[in-house]
Amino acid sequence: MPAPRRIRLGVSMIGMGYHLAAWRHPESSAGGNMELQHAVRVTQAAERGLLDMAFLADGVGIRFNDVPKGALSHTCKNVQFEPLTLLSALAMVTNHVGLVATASTTYNEPYHIARKFASLDHISGGRAGWNVVTSATDMEAQNFGLVGAPPKTGRYDRAAEFVEVVKGLWNSWEDDAFVRDKAQGINYDPDKLHILDHEGAHFRVMGPLNVARTPQGRPIIVQAGASDQGRELAAATADVIYAASQTLEDARAYYDDVKRRMAAYGREPDQLKIMPGIMAVPGATRQEAQDKYEVLQQRVEPIVGLAALANYLGDLSAYDLDGPLPEPDPADRRDHSRGQIFLDIARRGNLSIRQLYLSIAGGNGHRLVIGTPSDIVDAMQDWFEGGGADGFNLLPTWLPGGLEDVVETVIPEMQRRGLYRTAYEGKTLRENLGLAWPEHPATAAKRAAIADAVGHAAE
Amino acid sequence: MPAPRRIRLGVSMIGMGYHLAAWRHPESSAGGNMELQHAVRVTQAAERGLLDMAFLADGVGIRFNDVPKGALSHTCKNVQFEPLTLLSALAMVTNHVGLVATASTTYNEPYHIARKFASLDHISGGRAGWNVVTSATDMEAQNFGLVGAPPKTGRYDRAAEFVEVVKGLWNSWEDDAFVRDKAQGINYDPDKLHILDHEGAHFRVMGPLNVARTPQGRPIIVQAGASDQGRELAAATADVIYAASQTLEDARAYYDDVKRRMAAYGREPDQLKIMPGIMAVPGATRQEAQDKYEVLQQRVEPIVGLAALANYLGDLSAYDLDGPLPEPDPADRRDHSRGQIFLDIARRGNLSIRQLYLSIAGGNGHRLVIGTPSDIVDAMQDWFEGGGADGFNLLPTWLPGGLEDVVETVIPEMQRRGLYRTAYEGKTLRENLGLAWPEHPATAAKRAAIADAVGHAAE
Ligand SMILES: Cc1cc2nc3c(=O)[nH]c(=O)nc-3n(C[C@H](O)[C@H](O)[C@H](O)COP(=O)(O)O)c2cc1C
Ligand SMILES: Cc1cc2nc3c(=O)[nH]c(=O)nc-3n(C[C@H](O)[C@H](O)[C@H](O)COP(=O)(O)O)c2cc1C
Repeated sequence: MPAPRRIRLGVSMIGMGYHLAAWRHPESSAGGNMELQHAVRVTQAAERGLLDMAFLADGVGIRFNDVPKGALSHTCKNVQFEPLTLLSALAMVTNHVGLVATASTTYNEPYHIARKFASLDHISGGRAGWNVVTSATDMEAQNFGLVGAPPKTGRYDRAAEFVEVVKGLWNSWEDDAFVRDKAQGINYDPDKLHILDHEGAHFRVMGPLNVARTPQGRPIIVQAGASDQGRELAAATADVIYAASQTLEDARAYYDDVKRRMAAYGREPDQLKIMPGIMAVPGATRQEAQDKYEVLQQRVEPIVGLAALANYLGDLSAYDLDGPLPEPDPADRRDHSRGQIFLDIARRGNLSIRQLYLSIAGGNGHRLVIGTPSDIVDAMQDWFEGGGADGFNLLPTWLPGGLEDVVETVIPEMQRRGLYRTAYEGKTLRENLGLAWPEHPATAAKRAAIADAVGHAAE
Repeated sequence: MPAPRRIRLGVSMIGMGYHLAAWRHPESSAGGNMELQHAVRVTQAAERGLLDMAFLADGVGIRFNDVPKGALSHTCKNVQFEPLTLLSALAMVTNHVGLVATASTTYNEPYHIARKFASLDHISGGRAGWNVVTSATDMEAQNFGLVGAPPKTGRYDRAAEFVEVVKGLWNSWEDDAFVRDKAQGINYDPDKLHILDHEGAHFRVMGPLNVARTPQGRPIIVQAGASDQGRELAAATADVIYAASQTLEDARAYYDDVKRRMAAYGREPDQLKIMPGIMAVPGATRQEAQDKYEVLQQRVEPIVGLAALANYLGDLSAYDLDGPLPEPDPADRRDHSRGQIFLDIARRGNLSIRQLYLSIAGGNGHRLVIGTPSDIVDAMQDWFEGGGADGFNLLPTWLPGGLEDVVETVIPEMQRRGLYRTAYEGKTLRENLGLAWPEHPATAAKRAAIADAVGHAAE
């Protein structure tokens, strides 16, 4: 009997929370984004909730345009821990939860990324994941010698080769290469060392990696691109996708499309878990949930709301806040699928500028569900069973409270319905996600050769 | 009364230990270089010994030439944790010891390095240090699109600008920039944000860094270059130098030279701590110490000894092991001061090839002292009081045993003589090293302006 299909959960543990006003929540930590104990508390809450993984979004620079001027200082989108260093630290105070760090393929070198994630996988005992992003903002580009971000096509071309090189480096050593025979003085078996010697359009990398093959075979690969190229890269290489959809119809279309693309890469659909973002705000009653949400909504200043829109739709500060959204300049949609999501939201609801920014202040274009635990599980179950999701990436309004609410009230309801684990299934993130062991190509070849020989002998 | 001048100690906690045969020691960990609990035990021993810092050497690739062919598999110079991820994890299981990671300026971008070390400094509560290296080997270069390492002059030019950019990024925010006034909605004071906007020969970096100013003001900077350019960079920017000298005369010449160069940069000599490497092998008697050392010496196979020489002097396997060292091809000295040290050792002792490799199998050109705890402290005191050292970088024969021996027997003797602390002086590495707080330039300017105004008012 196969294990029942269960909802996977991750959590975005960025800074003070996902809501624009999270840092102004009356109970939020005074130490802000750079308080280690805050991050410890968040990750431990995720583990108490038996979540598959805690996910750290990242930019190599501030990613929030200070438009209208002055807006940035009214947000907490300024400083944060660097993800890999933080997750290594958090690995020491947790035992089961997966630790997913974002890293850019546009401004890094594959060798560094391969090493750092392999190292995190060893340190955490097999819980590392890499959220592969291509870094869309000009602000990041300017920290790396450029004036603006390279065109998206070029970024994704580089990303595809980058991931290939990293995966190759992770296979530098077979799983059992290190014999460490002290008496004979043989540290490793030279036949189990594989030199990559990669030469491609973007990279020339010799190898080997100076880190052993990892507890998960290789770290988990996460992707979040929604464009055609983003989907193709995910279908080819990702284990998990963070998606952003507003309706089941959209979610299902995305889900079907990406899973269909996998066949071309010889992959089974269930080897990729699609997890749309969801901002879940539970309360004992619907009113209580709504009231909780209002605590944050009331703290969204117009300048901050306008800035959140400006990042994807251009500066709207010359327009009446309570008037309609002007037709945006296509140049302002910034080469990014998020701008289109915002436009769709505005059009679907016929929203004013103020209504639009208030409606995305929480989930930033992700799905928002405010209600009782039962309402929230209904919403998840609907998409999970309706072919729109394998799980969800929780976007807590504020941290740790927004996450702790979900852990304490929503998870038990999911468990009651048999939709969620009651204990971690395995020791590694890969096992918990139900993903197959990535056999080393050389090991696979040897196995095949043995099977062949046995077959011949039996003839 | 000024605090008495005390010996500073660091430890090189690389892998299984510094001796070529460390991994073959009968008591060394079977899990090898990639065992987290091994690294935890080493770092905790360093902290028990009240060491200033634990230092992780690093290469972005295997740095040991497999010459003669096959030698590499008889060493443990193959895999290891990536330093920044490992030290973040170790920050969680220690409270006082400094954590110094090596990172290359040749194959990195300043923005990444600034962020990661700043993040480690926050995570560790002010214990981070960066060992700035330029990566001398061709093997590393081949992991980054090159055929061989760029010429040393170019590497050091880049390194100098790299360090300048990183220091600039670390000053993106003044210490008290983050007011986090929830009621007013003011997260930071915009006047305390400083955009670097660097444009130089090698880098164009806008900033700001997306990490707050760190508990140490900025992480500690360590340097290990011995060449003229290496010394100049250290005099300009380093807080600590790891040096390699065999004799007090050489150590003193190096010490005087580097400290003298500091004046040109407006720096006080005591703001740079020079710490030569020392392999200290203590025993209850001299014979016991010698016997301990022999356990390792007996496990150095000729092919491994030859390889250790080949890395700096070229392949000598065609020569008689028990004959004299041939005059090496200058092209084989590999642009590296270590080759010269090896030659000096051979000439001073008139050594055969075998004698040479055995004499560097432990300390790899660093000073080796085998004897009673008292002998070892004599040796340190001689250099410390003789103007050759502010402290020492311990190179344990094997880990953790070689370090634990020093902590348990040598440190108490140093304390008895009043040469060493009996408790950590401060909370940060900077405080423990006795280095001045690096005031933010804007804070200094404001202080000066106030002093000026007060001065005028008093006139
Ligand atoms: C849930 C989610 C999380 C993301 N996290 C990051 C991130 O942490 N850093 C980043 O640079 N981009 C992030 N992105 C942006 C995507 O990686 C991608 O660059 C963006 O969606 C534009 O590409 P696309 O047009 O293929 O979607 C995220 C996107 C989504 C939907
Ligand atoms: C004690 C010591 C430790 C060093 N550690 C490293 C290291 O971890 N990684 C590295 O690439 N180079 C390391 N080096 C090499 C130096 O950074 C430098 O590249 C080398 O000494 C050649 O430069 P120079 O000619 O200026 O000395 C070390 C050198 C010394 C003396």
